[in-house]
Amino acid sequence: MSARPTIGIFDSGFGGLTVLRALLELVPHADYIYLGDTARLPYGSKSQQTIARYAVESLRFLEAHGAERMVVACNTASALALDALTSAARIPVLGVIEPGAQAARRSSSPGDGVLVLATEATVASHAYARACATHGLRAFEMPCPLLVPLVEEGWTDHPVTEQVARVYLSEALAQANAAGITPRTILLGCTHYPLLQPLLERVLARDFAASSPIRILDSARATAEAVAAALSPSAPSAPGAEPSCLFFATDSEAKFQRLGSRFLGRPVAEVRHIDLGG
Amino acid sequence: MSARPTIGIFDSGFGGLTVLRALLELVPHADYIYLGDTARLPYGSKSQQTIARYAVESLRFLEAHGAERMVVACNTASALALDALTSAARIPVLGVIEPGAQAARRSSSPGDGVLVLATEATVASHAYARACATHGLRAFEMPCPLLVPLVEEGWTDHPVTEQVARVYLSEALAQANAAGITPRTILLGCTHYPLLQPLLERVLARDFAASSPIRILDSARATAEAVAAALSPSAPSAPGAEPSCLFFATDSEAKFQRLGSRFLGRPVAEVRHIDLGG
Repeated sequence: MSARPTIGIFDSGFGGLTVLRALLELVPHADYIYLGDTARLPYGSKSQQTIARYAVESLRFLEAHGAERMVVACNTASALALDALTSAARIPVLGVIEPGAQAARRSSSPGDGVLVLATEATVASHAYARACATHGLRAFEMPCPLLVPLVEEGWTDHPVTEQVARVYLSEALAQANAAGITPRTILLGCTHYPLLQPLLERVLARDFAASSPIRILDSARATAEAVAAALSPSAPSAPGAEPSCLFFATDSEAKFQRLGSRFLGRPVAEVRHIDLGG
Repeated sequence: MSARPTIGIFDSGFGGLTVLRALLELVPHADYIYLGDTARLPYGSKSQQTIARYAVESLRFLEAHGAERMVVACNTASALALDALTSAARIPVLGVIEPGAQAARRSSSPGDGVLVLATEATVASHAYARACATHGLRAFEMPCPLLVPLVEEGWTDHPVTEQVARVYLSEALAQANAAGITPRTILLGCTHYPLLQPLLERVLARDFAASSPIRILDSARATAEAVAAALSPSAPSAPGAEPSCLFFATDSEAKFQRLGSRFLGRPVAEVRHIDLGG
């Protein structure tokens, strides 16, 4: 690993740009290659075998472009393809689920409850519940299929989104309580959800004030923290070093640029189109 | 064409089941083969070339299974791949856009305005505006990206969906008026939207009563009517004949069955998995 690492970030789309955003803040002394497999999203409806094949194709692309480390900034691929990637890779591979579970553990006491908000596919994999269980935490996983389209519509501060959040939180807390789980932490288990954190905090404070305070964590930030921790012994921050970013997408560069900047929090300068197959 | 025709229906997913539902009512004396290319949806984010290739692969599958006629029950494929399909096909091919525009013409006077509600991809193709223009109608196309996920969440009669519909209708009518278009007809240009017709009619009547009455039409029903009209000379209805349906999907049979029955309005008995390539 060189003093200035090259880090490959892989996602099925542009949601993983929230992971890159956190990395740019925490690990600025690096070169980044971001690959969004936008032509083949969503991964959530595909079989484990297909997702593993797509993920390994992306790994090969990132390795060929000099990546010395791969961050799987896609919850579905982290849940279903991490073993295949780790076996196939010549470089270290990190997913978003284990860092998310570790962050939940750090903010909890053993036996505490965690409410995981995620897509249907991630919930169906139960990857968060398993990861939380290995850290002594009981997780209740709630699928929130409307949140991704609401974020993509740009309604991150809209009354409709507040109402949807209220419905999901109210159902989730009731079902968690019925299962004997009292969440002290909400873990945002989808790369789109960090854009909703201010709204979720507002809804929690206003409509769920009777519950004991609940802290919101997100896997995107937790993953960037894990990368920073892994790099810190070998790559001390070079003062004044600016990160560089290369963006690749398998389809629709324009949409990637337009929506991507919201997730990255800065303009996505240039997106190059690549073809990984049909 | 035999007296009892075999009709192939192609969609990227299960939304096209609303077209099959209308066909089962209007053309019961037929055998149906439905192919949902669920492994490769959504088509909306893909290039025209890719969509044409996928659509022709589906055409070949349907032809090989005895289809004597193909209905493209997918707005994106109808907008972007109909020419490629017509060139490649040995059987008649009908999309959903021209029947939708014809239905709008039948319920309008020349020069009348039509409001088309559709997905972002369909709106970006402007296929409805072009088809309406050939019939002397001025169309305003409004992308409604939240309606598909709301239908798939099952919130077809939910206050959140009413609020979303109110936002979209209010923006669309204001923008149409600013463009000098006064819609007398709303054309539902997405196969998911017929499930929202009762809600949309309620919202229109309650919140947009000051506007002159607006009739809602949907492309799914209009397409089934066009198939019935094309068949009527050659295939008189055999009294007592029951339709048969075969369902094929390229991924996730379980989700197809679960969600599909809502669109079809009856249980989706059995779904067979097929592989059309990655």
